[in-house]
Amino acid sequence: MSGWPDQRFLDLVGSEHPIIQAPMANAGGVELVAAAIAGGALGSLACGILSPSEIRDQAAQVRGRAKGPINLNFFCHQMPEQFDDSAWRALLEPYYRRFGITPEPPGPLRLPFDAAACAMVEQVKPEVVSFHYGLPPQELLDRVKANGAVILSSATTVAEARWLEQRGVDAVIAQGFEAGGHTGRFLGSDPSQAVGLFALLPQVVDAVSVPVIAAGGIADGRGIAAAFALGASAVQIGTAYLLTPESLIAPEHKELLPGRPTVMTNLYSGGLARAAVGRLIEELGPVRDEAPPFPLASAAIIPLWREAQRRGEWDWLLPLAGQSAALAERLPATQLTRKLAADALEMMGSPVDA
Amino acid sequence: MSGWPDQRFLDLVGSEHPIIQAPMANAGGVELVAAAIAGGALGSLACGILSPSEIRDQAAQVRGRAKGPINLNFFCHQMPEQFDDSAWRALLEPYYRRFGITPEPPGPLRLPFDAAACAMVEQVKPEVVSFHYGLPPQELLDRVKANGAVILSSATTVAEARWLEQRGVDAVIAQGFEAGGHTGRFLGSDPSQAVGLFALLPQVVDAVSVPVIAAGGIADGRGIAAAFALGASAVQIGTAYLLTPESLIAPEHKELLPGRPTVMTNLYSGGLARAAVGRLIEELGPVRDEAPPFPLASAAIIPLWREAQRRGEWDWLLPLAGQSAALAERLPATQLTRKLAADALEMMGSPVDA
Repeated sequence: MSGWPDQRFLDLVGSEHPIIQAPMANAGGVELVAAAIAGGALGSLACGILSPSEIRDQAAQVRGRAKGPINLNFFCHQMPEQFDDSAWRALLEPYYRRFGITPEPPGPLRLPFDAAACAMVEQVKPEVVSFHYGLPPQELLDRVKANGAVILSSATTVAEARWLEQRGVDAVIAQGFEAGGHTGRFLGSDPSQAVGLFALLPQVVDAVSVPVIAAGGIADGRGIAAAFALGASAVQIGTAYLLTPESLIAPEHKELLPGRPTVMTNLYSGGLARAAVGRLIEELGPVRDEAPPFPLASAAIIPLWREAQRRGEWDWLLPLAGQSAALAERLPATQLTRKLAADALEMMGSPVDA
Repeated sequence: MSGWPDQRFLDLVGSEHPIIQAPMANAGGVELVAAAIAGGALGSLACGILSPSEIRDQAAQVRGRAKGPINLNFFCHQMPEQFDDSAWRALLEPYYRRFGITPEPPGPLRLPFDAAACAMVEQVKPEVVSFHYGLPPQELLDRVKANGAVILSSATTVAEARWLEQRGVDAVIAQGFEAGGHTGRFLGSDPSQAVGLFALLPQVVDAVSVPVIAAGGIADGRGIAAAFALGASAVQIGTAYLLTPESLIAPEHKELLPGRPTVMTNLYSGGLARAAVGRLIEELGPVRDEAPPFPLASAAIIPLWREAQRRGEWDWLLPLAGQSAALAERLPATQLTRKLAADALEMMGSPVDA
């Protein structure tokens, strides 16, 4: 007996604690994922920007470092057709001039889950596969299931949660408005109608019969206990792990994040995502019509971001992050995971040794 | 011993349960406030649209019907100077034509807390006075305090919570993004940076030493238990009371609300407020620059809303409401209050008879 009042997620996934270290592209590398698993969490590799061989290599490295279930996370957007991004590049032109760089050919963009990624899932055999932006085509989804993986996906509305359950996910991630990174909304709800976790979570719990994972604004034991009170069977935590020493973001950004407000913005990728507010967002506003659709906008932004960081202009663009950075304890990821679990269990009346 | 794990609010206010029936102009009249008090809540009269004599009469009626502490709620905005609202009226002109009515002179607008209201507070001697949009001028605040009232006000950011504590409020209402009605933001934070209750509440609890009341998206016992897990000493609940038989909104609106998304809009008053989405919001969009500042926009809207309701066009404009209408049990306000308390206490391990 682990002491957790709801065992459904643990039975499904096999992790020690009902905590998912959220997938975070460019931040959650092998070291962070392995450290979270070592603490008893379900560790998540963000595979959206990895090639199939990188997925294989990084998963092998994680497994070499820590024993426990691993989650491979993929986006399942439709890749846009050729898109004229000249308005976007014109908007950013003053920044290219200011930083004295010329636009480069785009680096790797977030790619949708495809046959090559699916083949790699069949080879790696992760315990869990989580999707963002709905689910992949049925044929690919069937192959992932046949491979034995537990399937998770994010819902930002009750309608999305029902849609996912009907298509056979094993658990739904209820992603509240507070969450950092890309909102998983995929059924076209109006972004101005986004729902906070306090309202979304119990409504999703009431609407589906599969276990529900709470995401958004949870960064300490109080948040985990509160999520369980609202009916969650597990939590997904990103920003608190973003601030650990194992995370790959710059130390300067780890210092800045707890003091910064966050906002939903499309400047990073073209898709709406929550990020900490820096100068670019202040100057352009958080949402611009000029940005091409997800994930194309990132091609023109990434070289600028790299140059800003090279110059030490940490405030120009900050990482994607949720609303609770100020709550996060600054611990290594293994200790953080154990402390999150211990604090929550103590609050819920089942104290265990941390 | 009431069984509540945090007694600070109860000690301060003297209610049976740490539940505030939220003030709701045009919805929470004498009957609702008295019924909530009878169930053990702190009942709140929305005084922003009442004249001093109406405040006196309604408070007396509440006290004649129910024994328990009462809260008088006031706005403390600056009333705008003369404002040209011709762009606003031009925007609404097609609706005047459609409904076949002519613009009337404005009815009563929400008025800021002033000397006349303060004199009435001194006469009524409410146990609690709550403010929205900060606090009134120091001289008036001192008079309210000298009169023995517990002072509450709403914060939508940590900075606002600290500001209120420094000026001597007895408890801070942490108003999450999910909350229905007007957002209490008063220090000019960017509305796009609004914070969900899951993130806001523990950060406010950490920032101030006075008790914190959680508001936004709480509509059942789970939400109360979750708010206490995040550090709240009490909760403020609006939308669940809006759906009770005692609430003054139309029965048709009580049926529509649980199925509707909500959005932050300035169409009702000029100030940002969360409301259920109806046709006017769909047609104009939720936020229009043409709207004059709070509370002036309501003068041109109210006659249209009245006519829409007279014609049975319930979908044209829906009430202000929060994100959790679907969670609310449809009970009379006294039973609702008792059930909210009993459900929360049972979840928190202190069951009592409902």
